[in-house]
Amino acid sequence: MSESRPIEVGFRKPPDTPRPGPTVRARPTHVAGGVARPRSDVLVTEEPLEIRVHHRDVEHQVTVTMRTPGNDFELAAGFLFAEGIVRAREDIVTVSYCKSGPPEQLYNIVTVELAAAASFDPGEIQRNFATTSACGVCGKASLDAVAVRAHPLPDGPQIDADLVARLPDLLRAKQKLFDKTGGLHAAGIFDGAGHLQLVREDVGRHNAVDKAVGAMLLAGTLPARDRILQVSGRASFEIMQKALAAGIPITCSVSAPSSLAVELAERFNMTLAGFVRGDAYNVYAGPSRIRFASS
Amino acid sequence: MSESRPIEVGFRKPPDTPRPGPTVRARPTHVAGGVARPRSDVLVTEEPLEIRVHHRDVEHQVTVTMRTPGNDFELAAGFLFAEGIVRAREDIVTVSYCKSGPPEQLYNIVTVELAAAASFDPGEIQRNFATTSACGVCGKASLDAVAVRAHPLPDGPQIDADLVARLPDLLRAKQKLFDKTGGLHAAGIFDGAGHLQLVREDVGRHNAVDKAVGAMLLAGTLPARDRILQVSGRASFEIMQKALAAGIPITCSVSAPSSLAVELAERFNMTLAGFVRGDAYNVYAGPSRIRFASS
Repeated sequence: MSESRPIEVGFRKPPDTPRPGPTVRARPTHVAGGVARPRSDVLVTEEPLEIRVHHRDVEHQVTVTMRTPGNDFELAAGFLFAEGIVRAREDIVTVSYCKSGPPEQLYNIVTVELAAAASFDPGEIQRNFATTSACGVCGKASLDAVAVRAHPLPDGPQIDADLVARLPDLLRAKQKLFDKTGGLHAAGIFDGAGHLQLVREDVGRHNAVDKAVGAMLLAGTLPARDRILQVSGRASFEIMQKALAAGIPITCSVSAPSSLAVELAERFNMTLAGFVRGDAYNVYAGPSRIRFASS
Repeated sequence: MSESRPIEVGFRKPPDTPRPGPTVRARPTHVAGGVARPRSDVLVTEEPLEIRVHHRDVEHQVTVTMRTPGNDFELAAGFLFAEGIVRAREDIVTVSYCKSGPPEQLYNIVTVELAAAASFDPGEIQRNFATTSACGVCGKASLDAVAVRAHPLPDGPQIDADLVARLPDLLRAKQKLFDKTGGLHAAGIFDGAGHLQLVREDVGRHNAVDKAVGAMLLAGTLPARDRILQVSGRASFEIMQKALAAGIPITCSVSAPSSLAVELAERFNMTLAGFVRGDAYNVYAGPSRIRFASS
């Protein structure tokens, strides 16, 4: 993966600000058969992250998302990309933690500095977030809004039918934080042979996908036309919107998709598989990208 | 449950507008052992809902959330209540679907009309949603922001230790949409003896809780000081914030809570249990509300 331009980190750690980790220790009361005993446990960290955009000497607050600390620059870049505020790797000059805020908030504010030449409309922030990524008030209007920024994906590539059934276990094997805490979401990017390219975890389903897409954006490897996105949870409209923005043709989820996720996949020529149970699963859209055995 | 004031539904259904249902039929390709066959399936509907507030002759757009149609008035009321925009049942005069929008959006816009006497600051909408319910940029600031609107809950009531382990199955047995679609979230409200008072389902974890809390708000049964909230997924900061607003002292989830959910529960004297596995589970905060067997 080539770095077309280095991401500078404009950040110096003051001695009195511990960086929040992805997990924290806890001492819950463990109950078994009605009997209570203290137990040591590990919880996944949830902390707010404020995402800001800096463009032509003006700083704009974009959103605050509750997230698991770690890969924060990717999360910010991926989120802004999915929302259409960042349109290409070249739009980003630097990504940095807050340099001027109070010490305890240092690691919870990320500023993405856009190139002066980048096309950026501050009014877009308001329009996007007043409607929480759904830019209309019916399903069709939501799909129309997506169509303003994205085109249907080209046909191909094809993957083997059995790979879809194997992806959940391949992803699960690399979910380090899940192993420690027993509860958070993951997004994995695979190549067509089932090799895991990267995995990102977060308390938020959408955040995990933003981190994965943001990683590819910053590495200059988008659009990801030969990649598969595997998500740990359901496939919703917003997950498919993020996959589309990244140009990922195949999305697989372990559980059921929503109606609008399937509609988005159909309209933009994306493949959507889900509901994996053993070696069986459903393909809700775009079955031509899967190489089935002859029946 | 007493209705202190009727909710008028200012809505007439035009003949050409089919009301979106909670599920839709689909024809995915079912794959087993690599062999593909068409199959009939049912998907959970995901459609945007725009929530508006009408106060003193002015209509304000508050947010758009992706939700499963059904119990939309409860969702709007519960959401506004959790955000502090609606502060009591008496603030609400009517809840209605859009009377003037285009036909296809009729069922996707809900307006909550506030009493003229209700204290409402339009600037509050901006402040709340610019920060996606997290009103600061560190965990402590988020808890401080909650403290502005809520006080710690009083001690009590107590429930039997074995009830916590039974709640997931009791809730699951009443998840009608889950049975049909295999994938969506539920929030159940139980009394202290384990009797299910109401259950609400949605593609969105938060929406299911908003619907349940909204139902109680509209029925005039808040604060729910003797109730238990059981959620199908994880317990996050926002879930606990909604439980606190409703005055629900005990929240149980089947899987792991986040660090900030536990911190919120501790700070506001709430009980938070989770990670149920058979008859075993963890109590992360407020164990005094659970009657354990003597060990």
